[in-house]
Amino acid sequence: MLDVWVAGAAMTRVGKRTERLQDLMAEAAHGALRAAGVEAPDAIVVAAMNPEEFLGDGNFASNAASHLGFAQAPALRVETATSSGAAAFYAGFGLVAAGLRRAVLVVGGEKMTHLDTPRVSELISRSIDPYERSYGATMPALAGLVTRALMANGVGARELAQVAVKNHANGLQNPQAHFRHAVTLDEVLESRMVADPLRLLHCCPISDGAAAVVLTARRAAVRVAGIGQGSDTLALRHRAALTSFKATQAAAREAFAMAGFGPERVDVAEIHDAFTPFELISLEDTGLVPLGKAGRATLDGETALHGRLPVNPSGGLKARGHPLAATGLAQIVECVWQVTGRAEGRQTQARVALAHSIGGLATNNWVTLLTAA
Amino acid sequence: MLDVWVAGAAMTRVGKRTERLQDLMAEAAHGALRAAGVEAPDAIVVAAMNPEEFLGDGNFASNAASHLGFAQAPALRVETATSSGAAAFYAGFGLVAAGLRRAVLVVGGEKMTHLDTPRVSELISRSIDPYERSYGATMPALAGLVTRALMANGVGARELAQVAVKNHANGLQNPQAHFRHAVTLDEVLESRMVADPLRLLHCCPISDGAAAVVLTARRAAVRVAGIGQGSDTLALRHRAALTSFKATQAAAREAFAMAGFGPERVDVAEIHDAFTPFELISLEDTGLVPLGKAGRATLDGETALHGRLPVNPSGGLKARGHPLAATGLAQIVECVWQVTGRAEGRQTQARVALAHSIGGLATNNWVTLLTAA
Repeated sequence: MLDVWVAGAAMTRVGKRTERLQDLMAEAAHGALRAAGVEAPDAIVVAAMNPEEFLGDGNFASNAASHLGFAQAPALRVETATSSGAAAFYAGFGLVAAGLRRAVLVVGGEKMTHLDTPRVSELISRSIDPYERSYGATMPALAGLVTRALMANGVGARELAQVAVKNHANGLQNPQAHFRHAVTLDEVLESRMVADPLRLLHCCPISDGAAAVVLTARRAAVRVAGIGQGSDTLALRHRAALTSFKATQAAAREAFAMAGFGPERVDVAEIHDAFTPFELISLEDTGLVPLGKAGRATLDGETALHGRLPVNPSGGLKARGHPLAATGLAQIVECVWQVTGRAEGRQTQARVALAHSIGGLATNNWVTLLTAA
Repeated sequence: MLDVWVAGAAMTRVGKRTERLQDLMAEAAHGALRAAGVEAPDAIVVAAMNPEEFLGDGNFASNAASHLGFAQAPALRVETATSSGAAAFYAGFGLVAAGLRRAVLVVGGEKMTHLDTPRVSELISRSIDPYERSYGATMPALAGLVTRALMANGVGARELAQVAVKNHANGLQNPQAHFRHAVTLDEVLESRMVADPLRLLHCCPISDGAAAVVLTARRAAVRVAGIGQGSDTLALRHRAALTSFKATQAAAREAFAMAGFGPERVDVAEIHDAFTPFELISLEDTGLVPLGKAGRATLDGETALHGRLPVNPSGGLKARGHPLAATGLAQIVECVWQVTGRAEGRQTQARVALAHSIGGLATNNWVTLLTAA
C-alpha cells in the first residue's frame, strides 16, 4: 500500500448559502487544488447525500466534475448518509494507495436550507431503519432515546450542555462557522425542547456548504497515517447497547492499527457532534477519553480549545454546522489546518489529528488519523 | 498494486420482480459468496442509482448490508447513474488492489417496475445536463439525436435493427434474461416510434434485478486484468462529436494499458446497448471493431453468438434487461460465466472478456477486462 498525503484542503463558509451546490463545491475544490499546487486532478470523488431530492439533480459526480471544469477527469460519487464526506475520502485514499491514481480531488457538499425544515428532516430520516421509521421515528427522536440511555448511565444534563457551550465558543473563532455566537449553560438548558431530553441547543443546525481535499501519492505536508471504517445494524433495536457505537469502536481500532500508535498520541480531534451526547459517546468509543469520563472531562475543560485534548476546535457540527456530505471532509480540512498551523484564531499545538464521522444513526462510521510530515 | 480476482459471481433473473430490492440483492450476494466459498465479506460496496426516489429508502449501503446479514461489514454506496454497478466494481477493485480489504462483496441492483413509466423516465432523465433537461430532453430523446448523427455518417436502419435481433436471439438462451423471445428485423423496423429514429425495439426495457461479485486478493479462477474509467461533459452540446463517446475511448485505453494487451485478444464482450446504436458506437470506441465497421460486422454475423467476436451473449441491456445499478455487474457476471465455461446454452469459446458500461449519456463509462486464470 502506497503512502497517501493530503496536499491541499479548503472549504466554504458554512451556513445558509444562496449559491448552487455546484458553485459551493467549485469554491472548495479549486481552493484545495490551489493549496495543493495541482492544476488538474486525475480523478474526482464526489460526496453528496441526496442531490436527487434536495436539488432534483442526478448523475451528480459527472454534474459536479463538468461544473468544476474537469469533465474529462474520471469521477464517481460515494454515499453513506451523513458520513458521505469521510466515505469519499476513504475511496479516494484507496485509489491513491492502490496506485490507480496520483492526484485525487475529493469534494463533498450539500445544499438544504432552501427546503423547509420538516422536509429536510423527512429526507434525513430516510437513513433510519424503515420499520422504526414506520413508527414515526426521526433522527432527533432516536438520538433522544440514546441520550435517555446515556443519562440513565449517569451522564448529567450539565455535561451534555457543556459540549454545546464549548463548541459554540470555538465556532466564535472560526470564520467558516455557521454559528459565530457564544451560548451559556443556562441558554442550552432552557432552549426549546426538540426530542426529550434533547433541546434545540443540543442539536446541530441545517447547513449548506462544501469542503475538499487533494490526495496525492507525492509527499506533502500532511500524511494519512490511519483510516478505519466500522458499521452496525441499521435498526437501533437490534443493538446490544445504546450508549456506545460499535461502528466507531471498529473504525478506531482499524485506524489506530494502521497508524501503529494509539489514542494517547492524538493532539486534537474533530468529533461528530450532530447531537451533543454523540461527542461524549464518541470520545469514549475512539479511546480518546476513558469509558465513563467524557462528561467530566468536558465539564473540567479538558476538551476545550486550550485544554489537554482540544475537541472540535472548528466548532464541530454544532457550531461550524453540518452540511451532510461536506461534514466528514470539513473535519479533515480542520485537522489539516490544525497540524499545519493554519487554524487562525483557534490554533492548537497539534501534530496528530483525529477526524470522526457518523453515518446515519451510527451505522457507518469513520476514523481518520492525520499527521504533520 | 495487488492482483485482484473475481472469486464468485451471481445474479437474479431480470424482469418485473415483485420482491423488495433488498431481497433481490440478497439472492445475488449470497449466490456470489457461495460461489466464492467466502462466508462473510470484509467489506461491501453497494450500487443503487436512486433508492431514495425509487423506494423511499436512504443510507442504502447500511440498509443492504444489514439485510444481507452483514451489519458489521464496512459498507459504502457508489453511484454514477446507469454505470453504478461498474463503478462499484471499480471501487471494490481499488480496496483489494490497495491491500485495504481481502474479500469485498460488490452488489448492485435496482427496483423500478412498480412505478409508472413516465415517472421512471423522469427520474432516469435527471442524469442529463439540467439546461438540456429544461428543454424537455429525455434519455431516449438525446439517444435519438445521437442516432440521427450516426445515420448521417452512413449507418443504416437495418444495421441498427440487427443489434436488437441478435441480442434477443441471445436472450432466448439466457434463463436470467428479461426478454426470452426472438424479434425479426421487420418487427424492429415496424415497432412503435419512441424518439425518432429510435423505435421501441431499439430500446432496452425497464427492469428489476440484482447482480453481485466477490473480489479477493486470494487467487481464483478469474483475474481482473485491466480496468479503466473515462468521463465526458454532462452536456451533450459541449461535445465535439456525437457519434463516438470519448468516455469509452478513455476507459478502453486505460483498461488495455493496465492489461498489457489490446482489443485483438478479447474473445467475448458485454456492451452497454441501452439503445442499439450504442452497441455499434461502443464496439468502435473500445477498438473491438474498426471505425465505421460495426454496423457491417453486425449484419454479417461477426458479433453473433458463434461469430468471430460474440457481443452480448447474455442478451445485453436490450434483452437481458437493464436494472440500472445491477447492469454493470450483470455484465461482469456474464463475462465470468463465459470465461469459466458456465454460460449454459450460450457458451462461447472465451478466455478474455470485456465488459463496457455507460453512465448517463456517456458521461461516466467503464471498461473492465477479465481473463481466465
